[in-house]
Amino acid sequence: MWHQTELILRPHPRGFHLITREVVAALPELASLRIGLLHVFIQHTSASLTVNENAAPDVRRDFERHFNHSVPDGWAGFEHTQEGDDDMAAHIKASLLGPSLSLPVRDGRLALGRWQGLYLCEHRDRGEARSLLLTLTGEP
Amino acid sequence: MWHQTELILRPHPRGFHLITREVVAALPELASLRIGLLHVFIQHTSASLTVNENAAPDVRRDFERHFNHSVPDGWAGFEHTQEGDDDMAAHIKASLLGPSLSLPVRDGRLALGRWQGLYLCEHRDRGEARSLLLTLTGEP
Amino acid sequence: MWHQTELILRPHPRGFHLITREVVAALPELASLRIGLLHVFIQHTSASLTVNENAAPDVRRDFERHFNHSVPDGWAGFEHTQEGDDDMAAHIKASLLGPSLSLPVRDGRLALGRWQGLYLCEHRDRGEARSLLLTLTGEP
Repeated sequence: MWHQTELILRPHPRGFHLITREVVAALPELASLRIGLLHVFIQHTSASLTVNENAAPDVRRDFERHFNHSVPDGWAGFEHTQEGDDDMAAHIKASLLGPSLSLPVRDGRLALGRWQGLYLCEHRDRGEARSLLLTLTGEP
Repeated sequence: MWHQTELILRPHPRGFHLITREVVAALPELASLRIGLLHVFIQHTSASLTVNENAAPDVRRDFERHFNHSVPDGWAGFEHTQEGDDDMAAHIKASLLGPSLSLPVRDGRLALGRWQGLYLCEHRDRGEARSLLLTLTGEP
Repeated sequence: MWHQTELILRPHPRGFHLITREVVAALPELASLRIGLLHVFIQHTSASLTVNENAAPDVRRDFERHFNHSVPDGWAGFEHTQEGDDDMAAHIKASLLGPSLSLPVRDGRLALGRWQGLYLCEHRDRGEARSLLLTLTGEP
């Protein structure tokens, strides 16, 4: 079984945001799979996806602080500066975290660990709506 | 063909550990696939998976040194501190390296390069047993 | 449908290089898939793959500058030094960016965003030819 759908996320402020519920809600087809994989792909180069702690909001704020520190806006070494101080840093953060997630499906549900959630990582000051392509495959 | 199984890794000390043999040993079904993919997913947010050099133990020690330097325990910028100095750093390392691997299968074997091995990256001082979900799919 | 093929990339200088066209050109089978996934795997531990901006060459130069700054050649903390100053740094960069990409396929084409391209990230001073294993699966 193959299923693919687009999910447009509304604009989010710069930072790390839980999107597990929105992704699952876009995929009623999940329920029909016994074993499978869900691939989530963000079609942008200044936002990214990761999996991390799904409960404490301070964890997500610390992600933002860490990445701002390790990849600073407007770093003096950057040559690509014409799109704003946050642009080149956003590209690098996007590759450090990556544009896609592959997640196991088991008995009709995402087989995440108890503390795992999906994050949208918005690296621009003025993030636009972000397009995700969800691809689901597996065995009924 | 779809196959899914859980592999519980015994507790490992903080650091980077080769787990290629354990993963392959848990998957006798690999031998029956001509072309396929193996997806390995760790169901935790303070340990991660990567692929790197499979021979020299000093490479794995240098991974630990680098990540401790670039994401220091107890960094002054962290707000999420109540679970210990190593906790928030562990979450960030886990996302930098990622919770999953997708690996090609060819002629009944993982099609890794000559020097590639699978690493468990244990980011906590007292790592617990870690649960991996292995999902194998392909063509016999 | 499953298809797997090897793509040998000619040696590239150290740095970040667009390889989207070469990968797509190696996969005429893409055209026959309505929905699917392409998995690209690099069989090396001192080069890696990522997705990022496909137009401005200064973005790719800034990637090289950032990673050289955050993972410096010959860092004093490294123990694994016998293969040259660039070797251990290359291993770490390879794991930060990762050895594989999973990309959605839709209507016979890679479903990348408008600005997304595939990068070969060559982390060695004298990069050799690099072997990619391309695995394509999906529904006609």
